[in-house]
Amino acid sequence: MAGAAPLKGEKAMSEKRTLGFVGTGLMGAPMTARLLAAGNRVVVWNRTRAKAEPLVAKGAVLVESAADVARQADIVFMCLTDTNAVEEAVFGADGIAAGASEGAILVDFSSIQPEATRAFAKRLEAETGMRWLDAPVSGGVPGAEAGTLAIMAGGTQDVFEAVKPFVLQMAAQFTLMGPTGAGQTTKLCNQVIVGCTMAVLAEAARLATNAGVDATRLPEALAGGFADSKPLQLFVPRMVNGQHEPPLGHVYTMLKDLDSVGELARASASPVPFTAMAAEQFRLLSVRGGNDADALEIFKLSGASKL
Amino acid sequence: MAGAAPLKGEKAMSEKRTLGFVGTGLMGAPMTARLLAAGNRVVVWNRTRAKAEPLVAKGAVLVESAADVARQADIVFMCLTDTNAVEEAVFGADGIAAGASEGAILVDFSSIQPEATRAFAKRLEAETGMRWLDAPVSGGVPGAEAGTLAIMAGGTQDVFEAVKPFVLQMAAQFTLMGPTGAGQTTKLCNQVIVGCTMAVLAEAARLATNAGVDATRLPEALAGGFADSKPLQLFVPRMVNGQHEPPLGHVYTMLKDLDSVGELARASASPVPFTAMAAEQFRLLSVRGGNDADALEIFKLSGASKL
Repeated sequence: MAGAAPLKGEKAMSEKRTLGFVGTGLMGAPMTARLLAAGNRVVVWNRTRAKAEPLVAKGAVLVESAADVARQADIVFMCLTDTNAVEEAVFGADGIAAGASEGAILVDFSSIQPEATRAFAKRLEAETGMRWLDAPVSGGVPGAEAGTLAIMAGGTQDVFEAVKPFVLQMAAQFTLMGPTGAGQTTKLCNQVIVGCTMAVLAEAARLATNAGVDATRLPEALAGGFADSKPLQLFVPRMVNGQHEPPLGHVYTMLKDLDSVGELARASASPVPFTAMAAEQFRLLSVRGGNDADALEIFKLSGASKL
Repeated sequence: MAGAAPLKGEKAMSEKRTLGFVGTGLMGAPMTARLLAAGNRVVVWNRTRAKAEPLVAKGAVLVESAADVARQADIVFMCLTDTNAVEEAVFGADGIAAGASEGAILVDFSSIQPEATRAFAKRLEAETGMRWLDAPVSGGVPGAEAGTLAIMAGGTQDVFEAVKPFVLQMAAQFTLMGPTGAGQTTKLCNQVIVGCTMAVLAEAARLATNAGVDATRLPEALAGGFADSKPLQLFVPRMVNGQHEPPLGHVYTMLKDLDSVGELARASASPVPFTAMAAEQFRLLSVRGGNDADALEIFKLSGASKL
């Protein structure tokens, strides 16, 4: 990008740098642990301090604020719950912006709205010179632990290349999809597929059950065909057997993403009838089962027994 | 099954038997070719004779009627378009029933209604003593050619075991799902997933395109995550690039299956909102693009350009 500050990341490979991680929750903690295991110095902060403390034993430096992370690190990774949490951590009191410096990079692993991402990125660079890469992740906690996440990025090529060696310590797939916001847009397309697939698998499993076929045998019977997928193999037995601990993912998270799809779809004049219906089914589940219900409990909505 | 006739199939492995194949179309022809290549004697018949003739060069014996196939073969395989075609080939003039004998087996690879399957099977056994195994297939023409089909069966264990060695010359997966009709029910569950997945992938690809992301890169960006599948990798590039020759499958076939799902769902009190919406989208496609349109042209329905 012409006129942008030289990247601190560009001096990267020649000297030992300090990385930062803001938000060491369900996803952020195992991702940070992988950075530490790879030999990096990592400065961390989390709003709930207790969730960051176990990382200290693994070598992390725990500081008092997101601003402190930004003061010490050239590349700050961030993994938070939603758009509001990101805005607060970046622009709130003692936020990343307060400690940001020109040429530093913020890599946002959170799944938030593409439009908000573009506004935050513009503001952060204008106010501090810090560059933004949106890089939402897919693959869940197991993927974070194993370093097999798929990460879809939006931003400039130079920023993407500067952080790539570190991101690949946490991910198997890291793809630049376009300018700022394109990573978030791609993640929403991912969620269209994952959210609707959950609902469709629940529908198929219920039909099988009601029509006298053992739905737990569908993964075996359909293996290798066009209906086969990781979700078929993993989700259907959990749904049918009522196995929801630990949850595959909270219904709140799925619903937040599908509602973001709705906003993006309206703004881009894209008909999304399947996603709209999936969103309303997950909303029904959140009303009946609470925000922390396992998203796979969508199967229960079509059953005669209690939720 | 107590009281059923001893299976001719049971003398199978000790002596060379004659197999039959009725319906040597897009799927039946490569399936028959695999039986011939494995060294079996196969008697064939097809309503349109020209479609069966190339098999003669591969060693097939071409006869004048479905009844003639049944007269010569202990195990008759059949692969036809729909419920009406199956009824005609079995119970019509010079049909399979006219040449059927006690203890012989009819393996129906067609995808037809479970309820019709049960009625046909009952009638055929009552009138002739021939046993029925419903065994609809998944995997398309490429799977038929490569012998990698997934086949889901309904019937009794003894019939299933008697035909298994021959079916596995055409398929990688052969699973007995329950009594007569259970194979067809399982195939409909398969089609719930495949049909809805096509529509959902079209929705995701359109959203990406409209929101400024290159949809042909979705397979790469989402590889390995929960959104990944054979359909993602194969269907999305074809949709976005408008590659519909040869068609992946005709919209007529998909719509026939999804309408069968609708009937089964009503009969079993199963809510199938996603399948119902997919059926109406494929119906719209069939109205605009004709019955022979490629089912993947569903992507065009949400585009500004002409179908």
